[in-house]
Amino acid sequence: SSSTDRSISLAVIPGDGIGPEVVAQGLKVLRAVLPQDAKLETREYDLGAKRWHATGETLPDDEMEQIAGHDAILLGAIGDPGVPSGVLERGMLLKLRFAFDHFVNLRPSKLYPNTDSPLAGRPDIDFVVVREGTEGPYVGNGGSIRKGTAQEIANEVSVNTAYGVERVVRDAYERAQARPRRKLTLVHKNNVLVHAGHLWKDTFDRIGREYPEVSTDYLHVDAATIFLVSDPARFDVIVTDNLFGDIITDLAAAVSGGIGLAASGNINPTRQFPSMFEPVHGSAPDIAGTGTADPTATVLSVALLLRHLGLGEQADRIDAAVTADLAERGSAAARTTDEIGDALAARVAG
Amino acid sequence: SSSTDRSISLAVIPGDGIGPEVVAQGLKVLRAVLPQDAKLETREYDLGAKRWHATGETLPDDEMEQIAGHDAILLGAIGDPGVPSGVLERGMLLKLRFAFDHFVNLRPSKLYPNTDSPLAGRPDIDFVVVREGTEGPYVGNGGSIRKGTAQEIANEVSVNTAYGVERVVRDAYERAQARPRRKLTLVHKNNVLVHAGHLWKDTFDRIGREYPEVSTDYLHVDAATIFLVSDPARFDVIVTDNLFGDIITDLAAAVSGGIGLAASGNINPTRQFPSMFEPVHGSAPDIAGTGTADPTATVLSVALLLRHLGLGEQADRIDAAVTADLAERGSAAARTTDEIGDALAARVAG
Ligand SMILES: CC(C)[C@H](C(=O)O)[C@@H](O)C(=O)O
Ligand SMILES: CC(C)[C@H](C(=O)O)[C@@H](O)C(=O)O
Repeated sequence: SSSTDRSISLAVIPGDGIGPEVVAQGLKVLRAVLPQDAKLETREYDLGAKRWHATGETLPDDEMEQIAGHDAILLGAIGDPGVPSGVLERGMLLKLRFAFDHFVNLRPSKLYPNTDSPLAGRPDIDFVVVREGTEGPYVGNGGSIRKGTAQEIANEVSVNTAYGVERVVRDAYERAQARPRRKLTLVHKNNVLVHAGHLWKDTFDRIGREYPEVSTDYLHVDAATIFLVSDPARFDVIVTDNLFGDIITDLAAAVSGGIGLAASGNINPTRQFPSMFEPVHGSAPDIAGTGTADPTATVLSVALLLRHLGLGEQADRIDAAVTADLAERGSAAARTTDEIGDALAARVAG
Repeated sequence: SSSTDRSISLAVIPGDGIGPEVVAQGLKVLRAVLPQDAKLETREYDLGAKRWHATGETLPDDEMEQIAGHDAILLGAIGDPGVPSGVLERGMLLKLRFAFDHFVNLRPSKLYPNTDSPLAGRPDIDFVVVREGTEGPYVGNGGSIRKGTAQEIANEVSVNTAYGVERVVRDAYERAQARPRRKLTLVHKNNVLVHAGHLWKDTFDRIGREYPEVSTDYLHVDAATIFLVSDPARFDVIVTDNLFGDIITDLAAAVSGGIGLAASGNINPTRQFPSMFEPVHGSAPDIAGTGTADPTATVLSVALLLRHLGLGEQADRIDAAVTADLAERGSAAARTTDEIGDALAARVAG
């Protein structure tokens, strides 16, 4: 099935902690925004910490094949303190990103009204990070010898291919070209990581010649963190590798709306496999069940999902609803997860 | 010669851009703070972009041997836009750090009065990052094949040894133990970089049993960037690897006093080789010669140098002078590089 026949088949992975709570609101808003004649089919997959505790499974292959048959994936959050670090991240989240070749990890940063950013009141922050999603030190090519001894050596290998770098850099140029400011910044550390840095910078410069209208610059990742704090308005589109992207997008979330508003898409632009949309925040076990989780990041992830499926008008309506909702938060009393979902659903339906 | 006989032999590398200007002020304050009977010998080494443009040399071995004979090194800043990225960084700066085994890269972050931090007015920020300085992806073990073709693969290897991790982790515990709050945070990414992450976390936990009074916690590097913005007061001592340390210390500088105040020491605690002290900022060629560079980061680096040489009382006086000077900046007219140096020299002498 595809979105062109106005039917969407969605794999839903609510996950752990506040995951199911925010996903419920995301689906609520999704249902409200879809055209009357659109058909939405959802199927839940029980994956995450609860499943692992019960069965030891993270993501069995047959379930991954079933998920592969959907148009897209909506993920809440996974993990709890009882699962050893890395088990679910690599066994499920990264497994999906790699298996479905999610080479564009898209993370917009926007300073909405009434957020508690330390930069609130500063000039407009509105940029998007295009983080590579299938290479870098995330490939799992590390190893150790003499483990547990005084002679242990543990290596991690960042793998960067011309194929992998070019496709994500090209995607970033396309996105920059389509935005009003048409500016693209490469973030890397090519004065130290010279081999990977050379490949990234060379590719960035070469592909750039195909996009003469896009202005470009380069920043070392350490300098980029300074600008993200001191002058985030300078950024339009940023392209960077998997690890630097991980780091600067959390920072970007912190300086713009806070992690409660940060949405992300793990995108395979070829549509050969379903893309996956998820809030950047975690499962927050400490507030699970209290009804205080903010579902906005998940709702904004639904907007990214719609845009990816070609439903840009619906995505715009969600973005506008979130902006309007946040604008009124200043004076409003604190609302529950459910109430925020209701308010957003009402706005997009209206 | 050593500091115990009250004589200091200092290698001075003024470098490029504003480097010589700020180093001159650092030396001025150093001379002012030293006891009357202390002997200070300095020798300048002409290294950096100017030298490279003129001769193609970065750091010849015989000069490195001469530098090895000093008690410590004071470095301004190196680089200009005409030098290809990486040439001076690897040919000089990293060469010194590796040759002199500067395994503790020390970077304090303190929110001084009247700074333009976006977090100004927040609770006290006063932490120190102990960044590993001789391992990680800085070792230069990367490489590429099929360079310049569509089949290029470029790898970077992060090398982590039990020897290297243990000595820097132990140094960090010692520093945490000596501070009032006695808190140490390990920053890594052990859910993805599992081999290096395992070595770091294991070492951190094992050495920690020797320091029962130090409370500990662990943060993924992405989460650490959020806390550095949203709650930097939570940190006391942070220990982390070379690359993560590079990234979070620039961020730490941005959220505390700004990069103009960030000092650093590249320290070999065994004193087998001279340690090197430098401001975190670069050579800022755009403002070189204008007399507007703030020498404070260099002056604070001199304080770190004195502390390393066992002159803690003098170091304290510099820190106090900087605090007092910054406290009065709010109302004061802008001063030149030289005037700030004079003011600080007057305070420490007084
Ligand atoms: C959970 C972790 C593996 C993941 C990552 O590092 O990519 C997360 O931090 C993210 O940014 O989505
Ligand atoms: C110039 C560069 C090699 C250096 C580093 O990455 O260590 C700098 O950023 C620093 O932090 O001292």
